Amino acid sequence: DLEGGAPDNVAVQDPYANEPKRHRSLVVRTDKPFNAEPPLELLAATPLTANDFFYIRNHLPVPHVNATTYKLRVEGEGMRAVELTLKDLQTKFKKHTVAATLQCSGNRRAELNSVKAIKGLTWDTGAIGTAEFAGVRLRDVLQYAGLDAESDQAVQHIQFEGLDSDVSGDCYGASIPIEKAVSPFGDVLLAYEMNGRALPLDHGFPLRVVAPGITGARSVKWLSRIIASKEESKSHWQQKDYKSFSPMVDWDNVDWSSAPAIQETNVTSAIVSPSPNDSIEGPTDVVSVKGWAFSGGGQAVIRVDVSADGGATWTSAELNPVSGKTLRRAWAWTLWEAEVE
Amino acid sequence: DLEGGAPDNVAVQDPYANEPKRHRSLVVRTDKPFNAEPPLELLAATPLTANDFFYIRNHLPVPHVNATTYKLRVEGEGMRAVELTLKDLQTKFKKHTVAATLQCSGNRRAELNSVKAIKGLTWDTGAIGTAEFAGVRLRDVLQYAGLDAESDQAVQHIQFEGLDSDVSGDCYGASIPIEKAVSPFGDVLLAYEMNGRALPLDHGFPLRVVAPGITGARSVKWLSRIIASKEESKSHWQQKDYKSFSPMVDWDNVDWSSAPAIQETNVTSAIVSPSPNDSIEGPTDVVSVKGWAFSGGGQAVIRVDVSADGGATWTSAELNPVSGKTLRRAWAWTLWEAEVE
Ligand SMILES: [Mo]
Ligand SMILES: [Mo]
Repeated sequence: DLEGGAPDNVAVQDPYANEPKRHRSLVVRTDKPFNAEPPLELLAATPLTANDFFYIRNHLPVPHVNATTYKLRVEGEGMRAVELTLKDLQTKFKKHTVAATLQCSGNRRAELNSVKAIKGLTWDTGAIGTAEFAGVRLRDVLQYAGLDAESDQAVQHIQFEGLDSDVSGDCYGASIPIEKAVSPFGDVLLAYEMNGRALPLDHGFPLRVVAPGITGARSVKWLSRIIASKEESKSHWQQKDYKSFSPMVDWDNVDWSSAPAIQETNVTSAIVSPSPNDSIEGPTDVVSVKGWAFSGGGQAVIRVDVSADGGATWTSAELNPVSGKTLRRAWAWTLWEAEVE
Repeated sequence: DLEGGAPDNVAVQDPYANEPKRHRSLVVRTDKPFNAEPPLELLAATPLTANDFFYIRNHLPVPHVNATTYKLRVEGEGMRAVELTLKDLQTKFKKHTVAATLQCSGNRRAELNSVKAIKGLTWDTGAIGTAEFAGVRLRDVLQYAGLDAESDQAVQHIQFEGLDSDVSGDCYGASIPIEKAVSPFGDVLLAYEMNGRALPLDHGFPLRVVAPGITGARSVKWLSRIIASKEESKSHWQQKDYKSFSPMVDWDNVDWSSAPAIQETNVTSAIVSPSPNDSIEGPTDVVSVKGWAFSGGGQAVIRVDVSADGGATWTSAELNPVSGKTLRRAWAWTLWEAEVE
């Protein structure tokens, strides 16, 4: 499925030789694989994040997929095996649009590191972004393949495999729980558009999972295969990464099997303006503070309180909930602004 | 529907003259309406709370309902109106059993009060309990009455009315969101049994809602009516109680409409042994600490860490998750025990 025929000599030597072009303003955390976040002053300046400034979290080289020959394979417990072309997905299934925030599990790790050093990419607060994704509902595709999750309790997880793979051929993989996958209120997409355009190469062209309210690592890009199963994905990233542990556990004594894979994310909020250490000049005694807030699981952010005096007094921020007034399908972040004395 | 015919003269004068007998060990918070919690040393001593020791949170006098003439009315948007006797419910629908923790929204308010005085019953940590409830699934009854929530977006809330009412005839009421009510994974019951026995008078005989993972106030007791609606319950308890606000809001400046009704509850945990101010005697340098932990929304408690040195070191507790190993339908609390140095 490589685009443009046989790779040239450079590509044989360096699996990262064919990486896409990226916007030069992105703050690069690692080059290979490519991981980058936008400059924070751009983050949350608008309700939707422009595709060019959406954080990129790749685990492997970016695969170049031919959209014409691309096929998605759907198989597993209680289903017939099905192959679907991109055209099949775009013509045989209803198109749905969901404004969703995706966030890397490691977002804000720089702040954690400032308390106690931990492993992982040193993200600032920008490994998060919001886009309008469009595509088909995962549950519609699973139903098309014959899955009846209510009667067939054998299926507990929906696994995803990406076309991105390492030198040994192992591909990126993840899974989400069946409840999320098949819920009529879960809004999990197989997305082929991002903010009205075809998915960018870095964001999973031609098809990716968008599992809103779930940590970004489960929204598999360059999707090749969906597997209904009793088990979670056996991938490294489901089993031995993206988990959280007691403060007494570190990389030398960790028992990975003792913790569940992260799915729905905690509520979190960050200030985007002013920046840390900004000095505010002039005669004003009121400072305008802006930021974003987001909670996993579709839970709406119902209030953001800001204090500039260590908690003695609080100002409730004006909220701009990008998902609107919904309380339980709030898949997108809430931008907020407060005038603080 | 009063049991035993016309009330006697005393009952006419005092709506609380016919209250049920309660276990004398209960710690009474108010008499009329009756509100009480168990002695904390009994709480969480066993995975299931005995009916006699289950916290009682009544808002009004306890109605005495004749189970033979009792009828549940089901009506509203997109449904035919249906009346069901207790026998109908017990014979026409499949019986389901769910071990569920119910918790009053005000549980642990004594601790909040110790920081800043707030209104409401001064519960200690005992306004929580876990029982095995049995009955029919709410979604089965809604389907029986013809509700198709997926196609009919008009229904956003399922309202409940109780047979408990005030002198003006206004009854207790609450509602839950449609997503919870109809989810095949939501496990909302119309329960007629509690720990293998008919519901006690104080816990809603002959039928109550058990909406697991949702704050106790929505699990309406002595259920008389179910209404599918675009709107939430208009009751006082849905609209002007059981909400949370910024620290700057108090009873004099509150705008009740500015906050949503509490539904799923936060994660919380309490120590039941040792008790506050217990002195521990003897040569031991290890103390056994026990408690419970619970999170709303069916979210499993995945870890309990205990520190006896202000957070310098932590011990991960042994967990006894009463719902078993399920991660997303963990409707019952997790008991825990740690040996702390
Ligand atoms: Mo991530
Ligand atoms: Mo309550």
